[in-house]
Amino acid sequence: MPDVQNQQILLASRPTGMPTPENFRIVQTPVPEPADGQLLLEILYLSLDPYMRGRMDDAKSYARPVEIGAVMEGGTVARVIRSRHSEYAPGDIVLSHSGWQRYALSDGENLRKLDPALAPISTALGVLGMPGFTAWAGLLQIGQPKPGETVVVAAASGAVGSAVGQIARIQGARAVGIAGGPEKCAFVRDELGFDAVIDHRAPDFAQQLADACPKGIDVYFENVGGQVWDAVFPLLNDFARIPVCGLISQYNALPQAEPGPDKLALLMRDVLKKSLTIRGFIQREFAALRPSFLREAGQWIEEGRLRYREDIVDGLERAPAAFIDLLQGRNFGKLVIKV
Amino acid sequence: MPDVQNQQILLASRPTGMPTPENFRIVQTPVPEPADGQLLLEILYLSLDPYMRGRMDDAKSYARPVEIGAVMEGGTVARVIRSRHSEYAPGDIVLSHSGWQRYALSDGENLRKLDPALAPISTALGVLGMPGFTAWAGLLQIGQPKPGETVVVAAASGAVGSAVGQIARIQGARAVGIAGGPEKCAFVRDELGFDAVIDHRAPDFAQQLADACPKGIDVYFENVGGQVWDAVFPLLNDFARIPVCGLISQYNALPQAEPGPDKLALLMRDVLKKSLTIRGFIQREFAALRPSFLREAGQWIEEGRLRYREDIVDGLERAPAAFIDLLQGRNFGKLVIKV
Repeated sequence: MPDVQNQQILLASRPTGMPTPENFRIVQTPVPEPADGQLLLEILYLSLDPYMRGRMDDAKSYARPVEIGAVMEGGTVARVIRSRHSEYAPGDIVLSHSGWQRYALSDGENLRKLDPALAPISTALGVLGMPGFTAWAGLLQIGQPKPGETVVVAAASGAVGSAVGQIARIQGARAVGIAGGPEKCAFVRDELGFDAVIDHRAPDFAQQLADACPKGIDVYFENVGGQVWDAVFPLLNDFARIPVCGLISQYNALPQAEPGPDKLALLMRDVLKKSLTIRGFIQREFAALRPSFLREAGQWIEEGRLRYREDIVDGLERAPAAFIDLLQGRNFGKLVIKV
Repeated sequence: MPDVQNQQILLASRPTGMPTPENFRIVQTPVPEPADGQLLLEILYLSLDPYMRGRMDDAKSYARPVEIGAVMEGGTVARVIRSRHSEYAPGDIVLSHSGWQRYALSDGENLRKLDPALAPISTALGVLGMPGFTAWAGLLQIGQPKPGETVVVAAASGAVGSAVGQIARIQGARAVGIAGGPEKCAFVRDELGFDAVIDHRAPDFAQQLADACPKGIDVYFENVGGQVWDAVFPLLNDFARIPVCGLISQYNALPQAEPGPDKLALLMRDVLKKSLTIRGFIQREFAALRPSFLREAGQWIEEGRLRYREDIVDGLERAPAAFIDLLQGRNFGKLVIKV
């Protein structure tokens, strides 16, 4: 392919607070040649997810940071265009982790073949991919909602939150969602069927949440932190479970302590008095359960009980701006770049 | 018994911060007469435990507060002296929850007969009672220490902490204790056999703890809070488990937020990045496991692998002062009043 160039988006510098377009750099490079045992992949879809903000920092975490000058990482759906690997043929569609670029090599490890007849291939990055699995595993393994219990989740129109609420309802629990703005709230209530939805921009947000949870909160699926946590905290019931999968409101700034009682001391007091469970997790630790997830979620989608919305942005070069929008809550549904 | 009077210690007023002797009132009352189906108990030993501080407050918790003017509650070992109940005879020794008094009626519910030949009867309030069971259940059910892991516990010479460290070692883990003063530290290291012990009064306490935990902390059994938590927190490993059974440093004052980063935000960030589990509990929720505990702990005591120390104070009237000492860490071993 002498005329075709690879396009890659690199981490140019580490952000302070909210990332800016200057933290990224787009470069053109030659399309690489697969060696023996390798494949050349053409990326079709790139997933953009809040966790990527953490990879931009040079801090200890459950995953290594992206190096300065390296390709931004990310989950991708790709087509095999050349293969020197016995298990893959040109035309195969695979789930890979090829990052923010048009072409990538693979040695076949950590690839999963996708069947385009089963579901739109982009769903492998959303409702049937990492976000859907995060929702399923965190809610069922840690949250363990029982029939009649109240489950609260924020970013309820997003990739993870939308699945959390719907799966809670499938378990017989009551789902209360939190979203930003009337359009997202209407979607969560009317399309996803949550029992109640609250706009976190409302001035009386905390009171509205309390009114929507008359029997308290049994499971709070934490993916945002900040003011939502403050409103949820006093409503937690005895033995409430709090799977913590994200803290998007905190990724770009570390809040300073406020005057008044030490919130950490208040938290620990209630952990003790209410026998609370707070459990951080990443979906990877539940990897052995992925086949069960794919079977269950696939069936729920087929039955119309698990719906999803994708926010597809066209063009790899728009990934940095779309990612910054994501961190500011401006996407609507699972954000995917059509490369 | 015409000459004998009952002696009772009542809650006279609710404390603000650390209790004072004025919060208690000692009264003489007639010894009650058992009705049909009732027993009259003579209290031999009264257990004093940090959780009782919570019962003195008028705040929502997992247990109802003691009413003003009511007898302070507490676990007791008692002798049946009159019985109008078919299952108990005079002379029987029982574990009861009769509170801070010399005589009490019982309808036979929530009593457990003790065999004085098996172990000293006071141990039913300590290593074989609620504190021992709290240690066993919290450590094994929530902490789940694995061989080679590091377990940290404070108040390590106390009723719960001493059992936590020894049971951790029986599981093959490394036990690091925290205690106050050279005498308690020597006991924890030399008598209880902890792998390391740190004096929390040392000016370089946090550094000493870090040095004693070169591979980080996998289980922190939380029973004190405050400065111990601050030293433990940065040492927690990925997937660390934190059973929370008490916060004795916080019972008497709610700390004000300090300037600087919001400790709650820092906590939640690490919960997420390290996949931490924080789980408040009370031993009652594990009640079904008590027979297993009694079997295991009884055997460990017999084998000399689970040691205990009692701090026996003579005279019911000394209970208020002894309880205040307990909250200030001045007891040494499981505090029991010999009534």
